[in-house]
Amino acid sequence: MILTVTLNTALDITYRVGALTRHASHPVSEVRERPGGKGLNVARVLAALGHETVVTGFAGGPTGAVLRELLAPLAPHDALVPTAGTTRRTIAVVDDAGDTTQLNEPGPAVTAEEWAMFLSSYASHLRDAEAVALCGSLPPGIHVGAYAELIRRARGAGVPVLLDTSGEPLRRGIAARPDLVKPNADELAKLTGSREPLRATRDARRRGAHTVVASLGADGVLAATPDGVWQAIPPAPLKGNPTGAGDSAVAGLLSGLVEQLAWPDRLSRAVALSAATVLAPAAGEFDAGAYEDLLPRIAVTERPAAA
Amino acid sequence: MILTVTLNTALDITYRVGALTRHASHPVSEVRERPGGKGLNVARVLAALGHETVVTGFAGGPTGAVLRELLAPLAPHDALVPTAGTTRRTIAVVDDAGDTTQLNEPGPAVTAEEWAMFLSSYASHLRDAEAVALCGSLPPGIHVGAYAELIRRARGAGVPVLLDTSGEPLRRGIAARPDLVKPNADELAKLTGSREPLRATRDARRRGAHTVVASLGADGVLAATPDGVWQAIPPAPLKGNPTGAGDSAVAGLLSGLVEQLAWPDRLSRAVALSAATVLAPAAGEFDAGAYEDLLPRIAVTERPAAA
Repeated sequence: MILTVTLNTALDITYRVGALTRHASHPVSEVRERPGGKGLNVARVLAALGHETVVTGFAGGPTGAVLRELLAPLAPHDALVPTAGTTRRTIAVVDDAGDTTQLNEPGPAVTAEEWAMFLSSYASHLRDAEAVALCGSLPPGIHVGAYAELIRRARGAGVPVLLDTSGEPLRRGIAARPDLVKPNADELAKLTGSREPLRATRDARRRGAHTVVASLGADGVLAATPDGVWQAIPPAPLKGNPTGAGDSAVAGLLSGLVEQLAWPDRLSRAVALSAATVLAPAAGEFDAGAYEDLLPRIAVTERPAAA
Repeated sequence: MILTVTLNTALDITYRVGALTRHASHPVSEVRERPGGKGLNVARVLAALGHETVVTGFAGGPTGAVLRELLAPLAPHDALVPTAGTTRRTIAVVDDAGDTTQLNEPGPAVTAEEWAMFLSSYASHLRDAEAVALCGSLPPGIHVGAYAELIRRARGAGVPVLLDTSGEPLRRGIAARPDLVKPNADELAKLTGSREPLRATRDARRRGAHTVVASLGADGVLAATPDGVWQAIPPAPLKGNPTGAGDSAVAGLLSGLVEQLAWPDRLSRAVALSAATVLAPAAGEFDAGAYEDLLPRIAVTERPAAA
């Protein structure tokens, strides 16, 4: 089983409007809701790849109840821990040009008691886990070193751990020596101060991550691993909705780790899944046909490993 | 008791953000929720004026449950009829300049069975009502002549009826001869084709309304009644949030009707309540101190009644 942790789950709401105009009133023509938060997206892609997945983190209040109701018929197993606060909503306002304006609520104020309850549940799920992914932002009330703590516990239990977050939680988490981090170009630059991907991924490794896989949009991924440095690139620039593409890449890396694929195969899978997510009509889903078609067409090249 | 009908109730959500930028992502720093829809706002102001109020209309789904939970501790009695659909959300995005961008969900698709259930509940509440207000937009599934039907039933029961809506529901409703309609300048212009308030209010009376009270923003209200034509104007231009100002005016008119005040006193009350709502810090509330202060300072003048 693969465990994914989403401390700040979300009810993802998509609104369709005509033209979006600041300071005007807009009728919403279509409302869609899906269970969200990065770890939930990762778990859904892992399940589609045939892996048993368990999702944990927090859910609470009326939006938490809706999230769990929408999650129930899906493949990932729900091991979310209740919180007295209310799960956040994210609102994606898609206008008639197909562009998205995003509004993200902060999330519930998790208490110390709820965090303790989560840690105990996390420990019990780690016993059955082949790998664990720690995903996304921290809700209010959770200390900024929380991911570092979860990484130490996973490493203590002998479970490989992937971290996908940003800012100070990433900086603190990376120092606890996760097996893998997957920053995008902006997160990597913020962490290392360098916009040069090769230099920045190596710097991030020195900060503690065993492997750094940077997602670079149209340039695919750049992976600095203990076995070498590789870049994997999709066959052509993609037009579509990038929402969830990073989460699909995480699912590709995590499934490749559990299946003990060689690095080039893991990276091909991550890039093909990510591209197939951009191409899918629904945000955050991946197009299975496109994935099968793209997988053999990802170009993987080894890069000089010298620092 | 005064009955207010809100067929398309709403959970009103207010988001605080920094600068609002199209096609960007925004963290929401503050989330507020209140039970909304025009008739609910009217009932809350009526209750604050000391009137017993009952709110009816539809509520359903998770947002309907939250709305009823937020309504429960407030003064108006909840006689909302359940619907299998989900009560709409409205999102007011207030940026750091204090300007508001509004997103309004369409509301639940009310079925014929639910409408029949509502009509039976409406008939029973009309028996105890001194007056009834029909407020706001129609949810999907409710026929455009619904307000005309509710007006005929109120008149059949001998209960004075006020209609506050817009577009085709207003056009159809006015033909059923409501005691009072309260359009704003835009709604009145759309109904009558005239932007000249005196001409337009008289035209609206000819279409069937016994009294037309047009709300004209800074110019107060213009009332064309069977007893004459009056204009009531606040003492000075107001700076603040106009959300709910029209609903407060409706509450002023309705309470004045039930208390059998003379027209100038009803109009003074409507304008003072409306102004005290603009001045209140929270959207849709009114400032009781400002109301008491403004009430004697509203200028009411009689206008020539000739058509």
